[in-house]
Amino acid sequence: MTQPVRHDAMRARNLGLVLGEVSRGGPLTRAALAERTGLTKSTVSKLVGDLVEAGFLAETGPTRVGERGRPGVSVALSGARMASLGLEVNVDYLAADVLDLSGAVRFSRRVDRDNRGRAPEVVLRAVQDLAEVALAEARAAGLTVAGAVLAVSGPVAGGVLASAPNLGWRDVRAAELLDLPVPVALENEANLGALGELWFGAGAPDFLYVSGEIGIGAGLVVGSELFRGARGLSGELGHVLVSATGPDCRCGARGCLETYAGQEALLAAGGQPDLPALVAALEADDRTALAAADAAAEALGLALTSAVNLLDLDRIVLGGVFGPLFPWLAPPAEAVLTARLASLRGSVPVLSSSTLGASAATLGAAGRTIHRILADPADFLPH
Amino acid sequence: MTQPVRHDAMRARNLGLVLGEVSRGGPLTRAALAERTGLTKSTVSKLVGDLVEAGFLAETGPTRVGERGRPGVSVALSGARMASLGLEVNVDYLAADVLDLSGAVRFSRRVDRDNRGRAPEVVLRAVQDLAEVALAEARAAGLTVAGAVLAVSGPVAGGVLASAPNLGWRDVRAAELLDLPVPVALENEANLGALGELWFGAGAPDFLYVSGEIGIGAGLVVGSELFRGARGLSGELGHVLVSATGPDCRCGARGCLETYAGQEALLAAGGQPDLPALVAALEADDRTALAAADAAAEALGLALTSAVNLLDLDRIVLGGVFGPLFPWLAPPAEAVLTARLASLRGSVPVLSSSTLGASAATLGAAGRTIHRILADPADFLPH
Repeated sequence: MTQPVRHDAMRARNLGLVLGEVSRGGPLTRAALAERTGLTKSTVSKLVGDLVEAGFLAETGPTRVGERGRPGVSVALSGARMASLGLEVNVDYLAADVLDLSGAVRFSRRVDRDNRGRAPEVVLRAVQDLAEVALAEARAAGLTVAGAVLAVSGPVAGGVLASAPNLGWRDVRAAELLDLPVPVALENEANLGALGELWFGAGAPDFLYVSGEIGIGAGLVVGSELFRGARGLSGELGHVLVSATGPDCRCGARGCLETYAGQEALLAAGGQPDLPALVAALEADDRTALAAADAAAEALGLALTSAVNLLDLDRIVLGGVFGPLFPWLAPPAEAVLTARLASLRGSVPVLSSSTLGASAATLGAAGRTIHRILADPADFLPH
Repeated sequence: MTQPVRHDAMRARNLGLVLGEVSRGGPLTRAALAERTGLTKSTVSKLVGDLVEAGFLAETGPTRVGERGRPGVSVALSGARMASLGLEVNVDYLAADVLDLSGAVRFSRRVDRDNRGRAPEVVLRAVQDLAEVALAEARAAGLTVAGAVLAVSGPVAGGVLASAPNLGWRDVRAAELLDLPVPVALENEANLGALGELWFGAGAPDFLYVSGEIGIGAGLVVGSELFRGARGLSGELGHVLVSATGPDCRCGARGCLETYAGQEALLAAGGQPDLPALVAALEADDRTALAAADAAAEALGLALTSAVNLLDLDRIVLGGVFGPLFPWLAPPAEAVLTARLASLRGSVPVLSSSTLGASAATLGAAGRTIHRILADPADFLPH
């Protein structure tokens, strides 16, 4: 049975079809769009007209198509109108990024701020202030922000941050504590970091993104899709077992990866006050710092072997503070992976460093709304 | 754009639609099938006629539909013609099950046989003998076996058993070593056990099935689908870390779960020659046996906490030898899960015992072909 498709639904689908082709295929003429979508040229012209008028597409001037024939006018994603906001509240910083529809970063700010022991209401007030600055800047640039996603450093299910042990938070509806003129969704920062890496970074279809901050999380991408588990609480790499008799962890267990390779453990073992100091000490071949990095890397390697055995990983991207520490962490971690996995699996996953630095989560957060607009532009068109 | 659907493809799709409704909804009249599929009654009658003639469906006699009206003749899945074969080669046994299309077990045999240190060709020769007996019995019962799936105790990718450390095998195309008159596919036994549990056991939409044998594997079901990872090598729970300084494992690593809770480790620690003797000793409150079960359960709990943190599990089904040992393993394993997970996640996954016993993998293996027939009956109809 073919269900009759109502005109509105058909138009909505075709708008998505056209916008999707342009977003994947770069600037395209109306003729090329008609060919790729199978729609008639007149339908494409009408749809493109609506998308140009709404500021989703812009004409890019004459483009010669093929060797012969008249040059056609191409359309490309326009960054002039639609935008989205990515927010992050982590243990020792807040961050915001605004992306426009073309994927360009239009605003980016990171505020170092120790949030440990502070009530959610207090911290989210500061996020609100940062978000308002971001929205004002977007507005001043003529942008309409279609939505925001807030990244948080703990497992999220059903719009609730179940717990953030390093902040001392539990069952926080963090998005509802923000009072912004755009809808706000809540998501785990490692999951968003993985999406950021997928869309704006290395972009392989299958990988584990590891977010090293005060806490350690992970986001799994399989077949270019985020794996979220049954309830959305997957990827808690920081609490994977390294040693049952190890140090107490804030989560209530002991010997979790975080107690060896979290930023606090690393700095304490390395005898350094902060990450830049640790990196400087490592560059200066400071023995204490090198031993601290080795120990953290070995623990990371051990936890990752469990992850590889369970999840079947070929590629692991290290992000957050593990990015700048990558040259010191990767060789010992790879040695552990090789020793424990090579024989069983016949191969060892490739470790690489995230190219997005500290922005992976906010880029993924902003990218989520961009991807929603591209998939369903009709939902975001003025009526 | 609606693509024109060719008549053959349309008929194939409609045959699958009708068979799917009957398999999910039990005996149904042609009128009820027309209502559920949206097809006309005459189309349904023709399709049902073809499926009855092919032996996929059978009439089940008059069924009164609702309160009034004439009783209609219902059709149900028929077990009279189509069947499938599930095979398993494990470390210390071989097994075969034949299921008919109605899901009834028509043949089931398990042969204890120590396969350690034997060449794949030698062991597969014994599987071949067992499969030939199963196929002969099926043929004698008038059944047509549409295909076979072979379960093996190690990670499988691209039709190759990558390694089976407990057998000493590596890169074995095990299905190709069988010479049977039906197509044979290869799959990991824990994955098939999970499918067996999904289709014929507890049947929850989200769970981890743990297969405890000489080796320990796991199959993850999310949203009633098997999660296979990027290459199909996921679920190697037996090689998840329990202690980095633990006993050497056959996989080349050390302190893997298998070295604590695999059947060999359990029997050695319990001072018993085989599983029935261990169960008898546990029932008699033998102190050595109880301590062995406790130690295995604690290791199982530790490995499962890593799995829960990574995969987001609410429900864990223990199968294989963990089934008969469940009363002794579950309480200490649950204590570890509670101690390590309750605070972070706000809940602890439920442990239960598989109801399928040693047959989970062969039932899942046979079920795979049954599900393929139900999804695409046209592929299996005589031409």
